[in-house]
Amino acid sequence: MRIAVDMLGGDHAPHELILGVSQAILDGFSPDELLLVGPEDLITDGLRSHGVETIPAIVHTEVAIASSESPIEGMKSKPDASILKCVAAVKSGDAQGIVAFGNTGATVASATLGLRMIPGARRPAIAVNMLGDSGRFVLLDAGANPTPKPAHMLQQAVMGAALARDVLKIENPRIGLLNIGGEAAKGNALLKESYSLLDGAPINFIGNIEGNEIFFGKADVVVADGFSGNTVLKVMEGFSEYLSHQAHAHSQAEGEDFKGTLRKLLGAADYTEVGGAILLGVNGTVLIGHGRSKAKTVLPALRQVRLEISSGVDKHIEESFRELAAASQSPS
Amino acid sequence: MRIAVDMLGGDHAPHELILGVSQAILDGFSPDELLLVGPEDLITDGLRSHGVETIPAIVHTEVAIASSESPIEGMKSKPDASILKCVAAVKSGDAQGIVAFGNTGATVASATLGLRMIPGARRPAIAVNMLGDSGRFVLLDAGANPTPKPAHMLQQAVMGAALARDVLKIENPRIGLLNIGGEAAKGNALLKESYSLLDGAPINFIGNIEGNEIFFGKADVVVADGFSGNTVLKVMEGFSEYLSHQAHAHSQAEGEDFKGTLRKLLGAADYTEVGGAILLGVNGTVLIGHGRSKAKTVLPALRQVRLEISSGVDKHIEESFRELAAASQSPS
Repeated sequence: MRIAVDMLGGDHAPHELILGVSQAILDGFSPDELLLVGPEDLITDGLRSHGVETIPAIVHTEVAIASSESPIEGMKSKPDASILKCVAAVKSGDAQGIVAFGNTGATVASATLGLRMIPGARRPAIAVNMLGDSGRFVLLDAGANPTPKPAHMLQQAVMGAALARDVLKIENPRIGLLNIGGEAAKGNALLKESYSLLDGAPINFIGNIEGNEIFFGKADVVVADGFSGNTVLKVMEGFSEYLSHQAHAHSQAEGEDFKGTLRKLLGAADYTEVGGAILLGVNGTVLIGHGRSKAKTVLPALRQVRLEISSGVDKHIEESFRELAAASQSPS
Repeated sequence: MRIAVDMLGGDHAPHELILGVSQAILDGFSPDELLLVGPEDLITDGLRSHGVETIPAIVHTEVAIASSESPIEGMKSKPDASILKCVAAVKSGDAQGIVAFGNTGATVASATLGLRMIPGARRPAIAVNMLGDSGRFVLLDAGANPTPKPAHMLQQAVMGAALARDVLKIENPRIGLLNIGGEAAKGNALLKESYSLLDGAPINFIGNIEGNEIFFGKADVVVADGFSGNTVLKVMEGFSEYLSHQAHAHSQAEGEDFKGTLRKLLGAADYTEVGGAILLGVNGTVLIGHGRSKAKTVLPALRQVRLEISSGVDKHIEESFRELAAASQSPS
């Protein structure tokens, strides 16, 4: 198994990523399982300077699609962009998964176009592995598809359940629909139609779940439209940052201990602690890390991708779609 | 000025509300400014037992619309419900504002039907006075209108700006649109159309604002569709509760000091610290408190309503709507 790492993605590329890859290798992650995509000399020198002896395979490029760039424009005008070379590596079989901290839109678009969809899958979804009071749960979609149709929401439920089974080891994941009330008739037209579609499908649907309930173990998979899912993540990010700032601003009163403990608590709740979000629906495993990620995120990201590949999430998603199609054709 | 308090609304009614009203009066809030709606003997005895000498006016009723009840059913089957009597008191001029901790849907529906809309206002919106790194800002709508049209979003902007001017004392409030990206073309159809409508209106529109940015002083008024606004609040509520739980679960490691300080920090960020949310667009001031509110929320709620009434928010909203209408008719 080999994982392509986009060494030119994110706010701290390539230096933090070189440091992170070094740490991963020194921690025992095999260089044979890595395919680094980025400036060859810089990466080689960097890894050596951090004490790495066996340099992984490198695909050279110095071109990146910036975070601020339009994904489609970037893909058109930069055929040698690092994310496109990562996708090409998976397409050709040189790698089976991707770790990407760069422009999210460009990652989603190039993976979707380059890798194609899993048979049966209609739209990709970004899944986030979040922490609540009763352990981890999956929230999706976190922004790949801001205006889904009900059929896409059902597919998200199925893909999220496959991820929860394979990666979180939850046998029969309970699926909830993110809504602003418990009753079936709550929310907008999309949510009402999605509720009835999910309710009639052969999945373990437990009904609507509200934003305050997601942290308390009610559902293992929280299905949201990409707009709401993205908003949930960003509000948590901003609120965490706000709390840290406040603790800092009041540091004399609160003491250094408080700041440290708060950071630990907020850090544990941060989905980037497990490396990043997973792009579901495309052929091949793609991890989308936060653009702000630093070195310490690289190893968890690599482990997350390795786990997803080895547990066969994509194959299981394909099977689930087949079962769903068969169920909808058989008399109920 | 008199404020009607629904003494039968919320999870801890009436006992916590009786305690809260007592505390408010003992703290100097004039009994003449209160109109308590609920069981007369229970309220009188309760206030006396807490040391209140001058008992405010009471409108007797023992009927309440429960939180779990359908608002419309409740309103039809319970003509003597406490929230309806509060609305009737404002309608007749016996009171100018309402503090309500009960069924939000029933509060919104009975206020909208009973008080009618401010001239020019098309839909009510729930405004929340939130705390960020640079001070307070207004988020609306928090759930009165989950499926708004762009014209409603523009009205929210105007109403939120009036509230920010009058209550937060911000002279020229900067208005942002809650979206999942900065560019005008981001988000769903509603957001794109709302962006262009707000951008062309004679308001201080600063463009899209993302969920992580709202806490950092970028905008004084954050306009959201009721679905997203409600989700933002609920996620913050749940995440805060999760952090408190975690701090508690690790109490030996974290220490009592940590828990206390964290609660203080989370408490300050809680919009219910200022009493609750404000229903804008209806004739008359209605504060919607959280159903979980206890005694200590009553005084801030009363102060919030008093401030909104005395600063003339409704009148200023009406004026703003007139100006908006005039601007859209004049050649630009």
